[in-house]
Amino acid sequence: MGGPEVERLITLISKLPGLGPRSARRAALRLLQAPETRMLPLAAALADAARAVRSCSLCGNLDSQDPCTICTDSHRDRTLICVVEGVGDLWALERAHVHRGLYHVLGGTLSALGGVGPDDLRVTPLLSRVSDGEVTEVILALGATVDGASTAHWLLDRLRPTGVTVSRVAHGMPIGGALDVLDDGTLGAALRARRPA
Amino acid sequence: MGGPEVERLITLISKLPGLGPRSARRAALRLLQAPETRMLPLAAALADAARAVRSCSLCGNLDSQDPCTICTDSHRDRTLICVVEGVGDLWALERAHVHRGLYHVLGGTLSALGGVGPDDLRVTPLLSRVSDGEVTEVILALGATVDGASTAHWLLDRLRPTGVTVSRVAHGMPIGGALDVLDDGTLGAALRARRPA
Repeated sequence: MGGPEVERLITLISKLPGLGPRSARRAALRLLQAPETRMLPLAAALADAARAVRSCSLCGNLDSQDPCTICTDSHRDRTLICVVEGVGDLWALERAHVHRGLYHVLGGTLSALGGVGPDDLRVTPLLSRVSDGEVTEVILALGATVDGASTAHWLLDRLRPTGVTVSRVAHGMPIGGALDVLDDGTLGAALRARRPA
Repeated sequence: MGGPEVERLITLISKLPGLGPRSARRAALRLLQAPETRMLPLAAALADAARAVRSCSLCGNLDSQDPCTICTDSHRDRTLICVVEGVGDLWALERAHVHRGLYHVLGGTLSALGGVGPDDLRVTPLLSRVSDGEVTEVILALGATVDGASTAHWLLDRLRPTGVTVSRVAHGMPIGGALDVLDDGTLGAALRARRPA
């Protein structure tokens, strides 16, 4: 439609999550209509980030410094580590400002079907961080899926010998949610985890 | 969350149409997890396209050559010009393979509220293309909006003195659409434009 450069751009944009071919074309068009003010800045931002951002060698977060901004923040509670599946989960918790401790990105969950075993996850680094002595509690914040639950269970077995307190995030009704649209699993979890009013 | 480079990248991605802050973060994360295979190629594609792509001096299409691929295609019917509001409309018609002639991108519609007057649209180039003598029909394929309709009406007045045939795209029921979900305007247009079965 606009030559090979445009076709290639649309193809690459359409590979981003949440963008189909149609929205990729719309995004490409918007960019093409402002090469100087929209397109080149985005190209530069991508190149800069690709160059600068790396995986934190302590927690697995993505950051332009290593150890990352969170691991080096002296205001953080270093006795508390929250274990998450991916960097996206870490970002979600940070946006919500609900965790004042450190993180540990596992890099996925154990999955027999997906062929993900213990060696594919950052488990050994987690155990060595916990064994350092400063950590007193590990919060497991894995997804509420079968794989998430079995990974949490498996991690609990590994963490128990270290003597650290291990906790899991609560399951229940989402805030602002209506009861009648919740699935049975969530309803059951919410009832089982009921607390005195 | 991941340093200034990541924040800047998310901000720029979130300005693309169809992407909010949430999906921009997800897209940025997907890119950051594959800097070599996803991020740098996209950065290069953006820079290449920004350098290569320009507006076609004949029809206003965006292409890496000027005149564009369509204007220089000898298999196209050069007697037929389809007038569209924007490059996105041209792309949509090309994808559908429904027009075998040339195009003319107007660059918008007349809009009293939006402060768009005749001088802001590529009207003079259209009239000079039509006056060249090769063109026998101009198809107005503007949006079915108030501004689109009044622009079409206004263009018809400008084109009439050239003696060229001017037509408009039909309005009616979309193919595959159900009658009971259509708006009153479309229903009325579909009834008025009824044809013998």
